[in-house]
Amino acid sequence: MVKPKHLLGLQELSTQEINTLLDTARPMKDIIMRDIKKVPTLRGKSVATLFYEPSTRTRSSFELAAKFLSADTLNLNVASSSVKKGESLIDTVKTLEAMGVEILVVRHQQSGVPQFIAKHTKMSVINAGDGFHEHPTQALLDLYTIREKVGKIKGLKVAIIGDIYHSRVARSNIWGLRKLGAEVTVCGPPPLIPIDITKLGVRVETDLKHTLEWAEVVNILRIQRERQDSGFLTALDEYRDWFGVTMDKLEQLKKQKLLILHPGPMNRGIEIDDYAADSPKAAINEQVTNGVAVRMAVLYLVAGGNDSGSTF
Amino acid sequence: MVKPKHLLGLQELSTQEINTLLDTARPMKDIIMRDIKKVPTLRGKSVATLFYEPSTRTRSSFELAAKFLSADTLNLNVASSSVKKGESLIDTVKTLEAMGVEILVVRHQQSGVPQFIAKHTKMSVINAGDGFHEHPTQALLDLYTIREKVGKIKGLKVAIIGDIYHSRVARSNIWGLRKLGAEVTVCGPPPLIPIDITKLGVRVETDLKHTLEWAEVVNILRIQRERQDSGFLTALDEYRDWFGVTMDKLEQLKKQKLLILHPGPMNRGIEIDDYAADSPKAAINEQVTNGVAVRMAVLYLVAGGNDSGSTF
Amino acid sequence: MVKPKHLLGLQELSTQEINTLLDTARPMKDIIMRDIKKVPTLRGKSVATLFYEPSTRTRSSFELAAKFLSADTLNLNVASSSVKKGESLIDTVKTLEAMGVEILVVRHQQSGVPQFIAKHTKMSVINAGDGFHEHPTQALLDLYTIREKVGKIKGLKVAIIGDIYHSRVARSNIWGLRKLGAEVTVCGPPPLIPIDITKLGVRVETDLKHTLEWAEVVNILRIQRERQDSGFLTALDEYRDWFGVTMDKLEQLKKQKLLILHPGPMNRGIEIDDYAADSPKAAINEQVTNGVAVRMAVLYLVAGGNDSGSTF
Repeated sequence: MVKPKHLLGLQELSTQEINTLLDTARPMKDIIMRDIKKVPTLRGKSVATLFYEPSTRTRSSFELAAKFLSADTLNLNVASSSVKKGESLIDTVKTLEAMGVEILVVRHQQSGVPQFIAKHTKMSVINAGDGFHEHPTQALLDLYTIREKVGKIKGLKVAIIGDIYHSRVARSNIWGLRKLGAEVTVCGPPPLIPIDITKLGVRVETDLKHTLEWAEVVNILRIQRERQDSGFLTALDEYRDWFGVTMDKLEQLKKQKLLILHPGPMNRGIEIDDYAADSPKAAINEQVTNGVAVRMAVLYLVAGGNDSGSTF
Repeated sequence: MVKPKHLLGLQELSTQEINTLLDTARPMKDIIMRDIKKVPTLRGKSVATLFYEPSTRTRSSFELAAKFLSADTLNLNVASSSVKKGESLIDTVKTLEAMGVEILVVRHQQSGVPQFIAKHTKMSVINAGDGFHEHPTQALLDLYTIREKVGKIKGLKVAIIGDIYHSRVARSNIWGLRKLGAEVTVCGPPPLIPIDITKLGVRVETDLKHTLEWAEVVNILRIQRERQDSGFLTALDEYRDWFGVTMDKLEQLKKQKLLILHPGPMNRGIEIDDYAADSPKAAINEQVTNGVAVRMAVLYLVAGGNDSGSTF
Repeated sequence: MVKPKHLLGLQELSTQEINTLLDTARPMKDIIMRDIKKVPTLRGKSVATLFYEPSTRTRSSFELAAKFLSADTLNLNVASSSVKKGESLIDTVKTLEAMGVEILVVRHQQSGVPQFIAKHTKMSVINAGDGFHEHPTQALLDLYTIREKVGKIKGLKVAIIGDIYHSRVARSNIWGLRKLGAEVTVCGPPPLIPIDITKLGVRVETDLKHTLEWAEVVNILRIQRERQDSGFLTALDEYRDWFGVTMDKLEQLKKQKLLILHPGPMNRGIEIDDYAADSPKAAINEQVTNGVAVRMAVLYLVAGGNDSGSTF
């Protein structure tokens, strides 16, 4: 099997490659559950996090994943870095490579930046979110959680609810779920659903109640208030009324079983209320643990990668 | 002996528990004095610092304490974190717990936050300062320093000087000193002394000269300019005249022996002048070393804690 | 041989001491080239970076150097630190010393600060840049790169191009190059060349073409836009025309051999263009790798230092 060098997105991965990642995350999760969370696997390897958008949550998850594997970590606070001094993106990347960094975890507000970087460096590049494009480790942890909680993904009915348009989480989930054989419905306000989304093999719904009744799994997207162009949503209250996963909507369901996912951080009272978030149906904290496990798997696999230029 | 799970404040600790902490800090200090400052005690354990108020000093002390014990550390810069994205405090805490963090060191501007967190997490919670309430590791390092320099605490005359009202350092010191049998006087401007402070078993003084003559140990609080409501102090010069521990006041003393403490960072020329700060009577740098030792002891003891729910 | 305690500048080092540093960097570079970049040399030692000016690049280089040697690292973000609370520089330093930090890497906007600190602490102090004075590890990595690429420094013709006046990189390079026997020319706009620079044993040129024709090595300084007093440069375009190392100027050269250095981060299109930066003549990425190697050597040598008070 060709070893992967980068993790840029789920779009370019095969079903087998996604399954290899999920299978590798399982023993990693066992390590997190141990009293001594430390294996020497990546000792003497350096992982740099280069975040052009702030994210304590994702950065911390990668940092702990690296440390549990005994890698060294370097956090680059881009706001105060050389970038400010006018250095080009590629020069920053070449500098980290020349310093001996082997794995670069990058988040950028522009779609395609990790792909661009990967073409210009010998480091392994892991996409930690690029624009509205992909957030592959988030989708992998969602897939892992579904597989762990439901037991299978093939044929499963999964709904992704919220602002699909601005969501890289949605796009990565769609790629991953479709490749593993799930049926996918996206549900949200019409202006927040891209016109050509059906080309990815998903159904579009605008009625949340129908969607909840249909779905076996719901993945509730965060309303990213910092990302919304004003005017998309007339009011958060109105959003909650129509698309919030709330107690009354869940209690009206005719079925018992439903798995509730949310990538976090949650806006409680907007896209999800306490009843849903804290319900036994929700696996939101498990998602966080699985996020560390999946990132350990990714770090482990890319660190063993070769220079054949193939991604996952 | 029931092992402790959290360190939330000195108010709820028994005399024996405080002594256990101080006794445990002694071998920890030996480690700091070694050429190789590293023991494997907490290898594979993760310590996160979650500071809602900036503090390089206290954060660095905890971080080094953790590293000397071989724990992994994760610093959360709350200003740029998920908190900003509207996530609730408890969701942030649950996320860290789910990521595999075992010990959470938290500072917050609101009193009671560490106690609140401790009720909602399986992690061990260490209070690194909450509002005007408690700063237990600061008090422990003060107690340790007193015990080391004077040899005993029981019956000792200790004065705490400055803005008692806004000082969590004062409150934690009072709890600890009284439990270990010291006599305590608080001395400061009347508006900065809480009316009911005597209920904690302390005397109130407003004359610094009397207080210095009476005391065997003085703990000089920092004037926290960033915390003062305007109007409390008409001028810093006036404060210095009345409550600054200065050369002329020390030289007028009829006695030779006095131990001078200050939690740092010092405002030289305001609450303390160079003569006092750099005097052989002062143990201010020793306090810093003892701070690392005490925090190593706390980390060590809570990491060995059980889930009985008892704090120290 | 007396072991060094600090690295404050190249001015006070002997030729032999500089050569020892460069010789020590060679096996360090071998470590960076390994698959497992980790040796236990500085295990149990703590290195703090105290940067009063932001610099992700230099800070990261020191941090990785320390980690490759298994030292613990502590980053002090001075903008949010105790310094803000009014603490004196020396009190901050004494605090770090008392916490058990052994090596302090300091950058400060004022010349002489590392020297001042070194007089007041038992820690080893490494100057990571002070005002317009010195940036010794940058010069050491430049020297290392020249020695590696050209094979010798004695008798070599080296030109330093740009804003000499505001450049600590230029000053440290001049000291080092002259001590090792190179001929040095500085070339830049007359208002940016200090009047008395010739006292350091360098020639002054204002014609870049002559300088390029003369030189075997050119070290191109960054135009530090954030440091320029307005008025020095009428326009960046004009600077590029006169002092930018560009394709047309390089193609006009009558000779083939030239080594191009730049300390980074580069302003491509101003002091250097893509043709020069990406030319096989340039060793800019090698400089970055050598920077980590040189800093490992410095950390290693000062960590073995004694308290005789001698610097390198």
